[in-house]
Amino acid sequence: MSEIISGKIISAQINRELRTEVDQLKTKGIEPCLAVVLVGEDPASEVYVRNKKRTCEEIGIRSIGHNLPDTTTQEELETLVQNLNSDPVIHGILCQFPLPGDLDETQVIQTFSPEKDVDGLHPMNAGLIAMGQPRFISCTPYGVLQMLKRSGISTSGKNAVVLGRSNLVGRPIATLLSSKGWDSTVTVCHSRTADLAEVTSKADILIAAIGIPEFVTKNMVKKGAVVIDVGINRIDDPSKTKGSRLVGDVAFEEVEAKASFITTVPGGVGPMTIAMLMVNTVNASRWQNGLTEMNL
Amino acid sequence: MSEIISGKIISAQINRELRTEVDQLKTKGIEPCLAVVLVGEDPASEVYVRNKKRTCEEIGIRSIGHNLPDTTTQEELETLVQNLNSDPVIHGILCQFPLPGDLDETQVIQTFSPEKDVDGLHPMNAGLIAMGQPRFISCTPYGVLQMLKRSGISTSGKNAVVLGRSNLVGRPIATLLSSKGWDSTVTVCHSRTADLAEVTSKADILIAAIGIPEFVTKNMVKKGAVVIDVGINRIDDPSKTKGSRLVGDVAFEEVEAKASFITTVPGGVGPMTIAMLMVNTVNASRWQNGLTEMNL
Repeated sequence: MSEIISGKIISAQINRELRTEVDQLKTKGIEPCLAVVLVGEDPASEVYVRNKKRTCEEIGIRSIGHNLPDTTTQEELETLVQNLNSDPVIHGILCQFPLPGDLDETQVIQTFSPEKDVDGLHPMNAGLIAMGQPRFISCTPYGVLQMLKRSGISTSGKNAVVLGRSNLVGRPIATLLSSKGWDSTVTVCHSRTADLAEVTSKADILIAAIGIPEFVTKNMVKKGAVVIDVGINRIDDPSKTKGSRLVGDVAFEEVEAKASFITTVPGGVGPMTIAMLMVNTVNASRWQNGLTEMNL
Repeated sequence: MSEIISGKIISAQINRELRTEVDQLKTKGIEPCLAVVLVGEDPASEVYVRNKKRTCEEIGIRSIGHNLPDTTTQEELETLVQNLNSDPVIHGILCQFPLPGDLDETQVIQTFSPEKDVDGLHPMNAGLIAMGQPRFISCTPYGVLQMLKRSGISTSGKNAVVLGRSNLVGRPIATLLSSKGWDSTVTVCHSRTADLAEVTSKADILIAAIGIPEFVTKNMVKKGAVVIDVGINRIDDPSKTKGSRLVGDVAFEEVEAKASFITTVPGGVGPMTIAMLMVNTVNASRWQNGLTEMNL
């Protein structure tokens, strides 16, 4: 039996720290402010945006919504972003993806001021991570690091295996875990890896971010490993009223018996992402006012 | 006995291809042009700059030198870079490091237009690598990749171990080798790695970039491995007229007996770096004229 690392509990703890931090910033005349851009009426995106705005409110961050119709042109969207870039009231800009129609997300991202890119999507911020000087870390990798840290898991000198090499998750987690301060020996595995189970079963820390339901089985996991499940996959389940349920990239029940620490899906990495967006927004407001980042 | 991967031969081959490419570009009215900025009179830097200019000349790339006194201020240097950024004749900007005195290299790098950063030093270009859309790859990692490719070494599904996690060498090599198209399973090792020899001796491809003379010994290398030595270290040797000689990070003689392919120091990765700077400069001129990159 392993210990559950709860994203719900840890994110709630971070949100409480943020609430205190924002109160203190306000006494200095700084009101952290996030611009939230939503294009179109995708129901899932509306839910995400609502949750982010609600968390802002709970913490005391001001959020300013910009809801644009799905007829918005690339130029109109980029003009809005440029206006937000130059608006000194705004510290962070969030644009909810996916964008509808033919709108080009990569182009929009490159329009963000890297100083306000609180989702950590701009290549400049990916580059600062690669160069060992991280500024905005994108929310999922940042959440994973906080879960490890706040669970007292030592990473230095440990074998960490990251399953998945995506730009937004696998790659930055691998880079950060192998960088100074974290100091793991990191192996990145992917679909072309030979003898995958042999590699993963050497991992002291296993990060699953491959996007395949219940892919990681007990034979792939070392006894006593720390297992972080980044996957969120919907699978059919006729026993549920919705006819489906969410599972991670890890076959939870069998792996739980072998791991020392493990995250659940849902309730694991998922709840961390909004908290880390809030951290990035508060840090943006600190940096833009000449302060150093929060000590998390 | 292993086969030697010769950086001298491969770089000469690349330079010949570049010469042909530049001739063709000139028929289209495009003359690739590199601005070469040297501050102060460091003898080693003067040699490097001279070699780069000479290679430009051999290939047909125009080079424009800017030799500034070591009394140059940060502002003067950045003003020069900004002028070069906006000069349409200039496709690439090289500033020879280290800079003398208190001049801030990081600040200068961030002044480069990322589109003209042919040394691949700007965080934006590091970020594009991290995001799987490389533009300018810095010259040493790019040279290593070309040595593997042009020696017919298959990387897909192979275990690659990168010894060293520096921003400019270990990190980008690891990221590129694990990215799509290269598809190795990459492990990054460093000073905090436990059981280093155990990890390195699993490597089908071992890249040594740790900066310690002859650190990699035969017990750390798998029989038949491909060994790329990025290190350039000067050690005492009373038998030489200079009293010293250059060695790599690999104990060449004993490892050569075990490897299938190996590079030498000197004559290995070293000669590749100027060739790759030339490739980046030619590609800069192509991109700035709406063409795609060369097929290398």
